[in-house]
Amino acid sequence: MPIPPFQRIAIVGLGLMGGSVAKALRGNGFAGSIVGVVADAKDVRRMRPAVKRWRISLTHVLAPALQDADLVLLATAPHVILQQLPEVARHVSATALVSDVASIKVPIAQLGEHLLGERFIAGHPLVGGEKTGFAAARKRLYQGAQVVLTPLPGRRNAALEKVRGFWESLGATIAQMTPEIHDNALAATSHLPHLLAFAYMAGLEEQVAELRHLAGGGLRDFTRIGASDPDLWADILWENRAAVGQRLKDLQNMLDDAERMLAGSDARPLQALLARGRICRQQFQFPPVHS
Amino acid sequence: MPIPPFQRIAIVGLGLMGGSVAKALRGNGFAGSIVGVVADAKDVRRMRPAVKRWRISLTHVLAPALQDADLVLLATAPHVILQQLPEVARHVSATALVSDVASIKVPIAQLGEHLLGERFIAGHPLVGGEKTGFAAARKRLYQGAQVVLTPLPGRRNAALEKVRGFWESLGATIAQMTPEIHDNALAATSHLPHLLAFAYMAGLEEQVAELRHLAGGGLRDFTRIGASDPDLWADILWENRAAVGQRLKDLQNMLDDAERMLAGSDARPLQALLARGRICRQQFQFPPVHS
Repeated sequence: MPIPPFQRIAIVGLGLMGGSVAKALRGNGFAGSIVGVVADAKDVRRMRPAVKRWRISLTHVLAPALQDADLVLLATAPHVILQQLPEVARHVSATALVSDVASIKVPIAQLGEHLLGERFIAGHPLVGGEKTGFAAARKRLYQGAQVVLTPLPGRRNAALEKVRGFWESLGATIAQMTPEIHDNALAATSHLPHLLAFAYMAGLEEQVAELRHLAGGGLRDFTRIGASDPDLWADILWENRAAVGQRLKDLQNMLDDAERMLAGSDARPLQALLARGRICRQQFQFPPVHS
Repeated sequence: MPIPPFQRIAIVGLGLMGGSVAKALRGNGFAGSIVGVVADAKDVRRMRPAVKRWRISLTHVLAPALQDADLVLLATAPHVILQQLPEVARHVSATALVSDVASIKVPIAQLGEHLLGERFIAGHPLVGGEKTGFAAARKRLYQGAQVVLTPLPGRRNAALEKVRGFWESLGATIAQMTPEIHDNALAATSHLPHLLAFAYMAGLEEQVAELRHLAGGGLRDFTRIGASDPDLWADILWENRAAVGQRLKDLQNMLDDAERMLAGSDARPLQALLARGRICRQQFQFPPVHS
């Protein structure tokens, strides 16, 4: 494993994503300091036993945690990152870099770069899971994962290279694109599927007593992401609502077609639609299923 | 394991479902005969090496395979079962029972009972997978699975008890309901999710080049069932098109609501919708994930 190009890392938010960064660093033998910033004093007390073996210092006060850091990684919900960024910018040292892991990039990249210039490199690892919290964090989460970085177009500076090297040291591969391209693509590959999984289950709530024993592995996997944190996902969907709304309109048109096919007199159009879906899916490169 | 209450079993269709029955029987030490009926002479030649260790006789001619059987299990696609049932009824012995594993029950239960009376017990194991063929069949597929049997209302005869005992000997638990209730429920818990998974991917086909590297585990699992056999699923959807069409209309209304929420000025209704979906999902009892 390459060595991470940082020595004092502050991770704001020790949930699935932030916690997995900490565990991955220690799993790789990272000997520098890791400070975890959690929501409040109660979380500090609650989490202290769990973080001990990973040698993570805990605090709920942002400013002191940032002063010494050479990398600050923001791993809270998007709207929390947007709230925290001004305080981060005030307290972080002039040589530190700041990055994040949020599933939406446009508002975060804009604010981060407005406040921190080239020292802010927005990022999004395309991995996760419906389980939340430090207990669900895994040291191999980023192994083989794709991490999207969305620096300002045309940038190719030392900060970008260091953040790239950081993720590579955790086993990830890097893709680079604009925040707009990212958010538009992720609306299709992640955000709208989450909305559908949640909405699909919400649509069954009146019949849950009759249906709850009649589901197989199909519905289980189709709606796995509907077991995710609803507040986090409402936040992501809301921050990307223009792109998600457009994708949803497109899907509604596709489903209108499907409805007409079901009401028609010939099964072949339906068969052709399904075959198209299957062929398209075969071209996708999905992350491996971790056990 | 209880002993299956049959000694000479003919399985028509040795794909994932039928093949798994054969493997489960042998895995349990079933010492009786298993005849597998496949589509044509080419399939007989192709599959002979694979079925040898499971001691399955292969044929592509229905009539002789049925003459000696005390259980005939139909495990082909729904429209094929509907085509085969008259020939099965002509050739099966007067004491044999006939059952099936199709995902839709109304037309199959009606025709089967019309032709075979109480000797036909329609069934549907609520398990499966996107992989197809005898190679994908697993001897533990029915372990802990739920099998729905849909005999004529009011029936509680020896035939039903024997078919129930058969599935229980493979590790399944039995639920009993009318074919109409089954098809209406499965439209919601299986058929429409399949349609959505296929249609969702079909909707991405024009952008597959941009999106194919930008999907995580969410889209992978959300669309896993969209890797299923499109012909089989077009068949299932078509045979159950009234119920699936109605469920799709209901979903479209729900998605219209979601679209309005995304276009609104307040994220809270969206958050409430997601929370409802998550709570509903927690009440479902899904089959375990087999490794």
